[in-house]
Amino acid sequence: MAVSYEECIKACLECMEACNGCYDACLKEENVKMMADCIRYNRECADICALAAKAMQSDSPFAKQICKLCADICEACGKMCEQHNHANHCKECAESCFKCAEICRTMAS
Amino acid sequence: MAVSYEECIKACLECMEACNGCYDACLKEENVKMMADCIRYNRECADICALAAKAMQSDSPFAKQICKLCADICEACGKMCEQHNHANHCKECAESCFKCAEICRTMAS
Amino acid sequence: MAVSYEECIKACLECMEACNGCYDACLKEENVKMMADCIRYNRECADICALAAKAMQSDSPFAKQICKLCADICEACGKMCEQHNHANHCKECAESCFKCAEICRTMAS
Amino acid sequence: MAVSYEECIKACLECMEACNGCYDACLKEENVKMMADCIRYNRECADICALAAKAMQSDSPFAKQICKLCADICEACGKMCEQHNHANHCKECAESCFKCAEICRTMAS
Repeated sequence: MAVSYEECIKACLECMEACNGCYDACLKEENVKMMADCIRYNRECADICALAAKAMQSDSPFAKQICKLCADICEACGKMCEQHNHANHCKECAESCFKCAEICRTMAS
Repeated sequence: MAVSYEECIKACLECMEACNGCYDACLKEENVKMMADCIRYNRECADICALAAKAMQSDSPFAKQICKLCADICEACGKMCEQHNHANHCKECAESCFKCAEICRTMAS
Repeated sequence: MAVSYEECIKACLECMEACNGCYDACLKEENVKMMADCIRYNRECADICALAAKAMQSDSPFAKQICKLCADICEACGKMCEQHNHANHCKECAESCFKCAEICRTMAS
Repeated sequence: MAVSYEECIKACLECMEACNGCYDACLKEENVKMMADCIRYNRECADICALAAKAMQSDSPFAKQICKLCADICEACGKMCEQHNHANHCKECAESCFKCAEICRTMAS
């Protein structure tokens, strides 16, 4: 099933927002040490989602390749956040990441 | 009058989308030379809008300062695009830029 | 005293490297909680240094304004890192930040 | 043959500088239309080089994957610039791109 640029951009921007919010919330947690990898993955994921959105919005010749990498990073970030599902921000972030990963994977294929 | 992070993020993301789209459309114009400055300003404006959105989404201590710079660049980009109002993408981009400039200026104040 | 683009780009790239390295080292510290603000500032500082370098390298019409913001963020990041001078990466990062802040401030003036 | 992070970061930063400079020079050319694709590729290449440098500097778990994508985009940008070898900035940029592509490819493998 095909996916439109519009749909994929929307998923990337939502995932970017979730990851930036989760990054901020993790840094404010009582136990930051437990969240260290989550902070790291959130940063990477937010940045690649921003790059993927920019690529599609400007009709980049590399849009599909960037979406493929974005799918991989979103998938990894979702799995990381999933492990911290006692925190609501991580739980919601994992959902955004998995959704974005799926849409980006379809876009890249 | 105050403005919320949510409202300002929305304006930045819309302006980013308009600028990336206008950048792409300008590069595909028959007369690219006439659009050279517009291409340049669009790129700068899309990038600072992305940075401002990221700053607000992650509750950056520098969010207001980044929004102030974003307002200045959006204003300049809007004025540049306005001069090419024979092209629909420039006309629409100018509107997004001026709107974002105003909201970012309020946020920064 | 004037400063060249070349000199200022060099300072920004060195500060970016120091901040990205300090961000990574802070996330690997035993006491991450104590480093939470440092992690946050390092991220912001590395990103604005990258933007400032890009602006100067591409002769952006906004280079000076971006350097002014970069100087402010470098200054704040340097002061944050300075408080953690038991850690070598923070101590060295603070030096890079203050040096970059000074050169960017001269560039912006 | 192995390649160090330090060496690969250096190649990425040099390629970023060459691409940002070539982007600027192309926009100032008499015949901008002929340079439209070059402008576009330069922007993409400079941005992915910046991301790859950041990833390695912060010991990102995705550094190799980002370097792989960087190698692909550098290769494509080098081929694009090579076609405009009447312009010195394009010729030099192509060299930086091919060098960075090779080093990033080794890093990713």
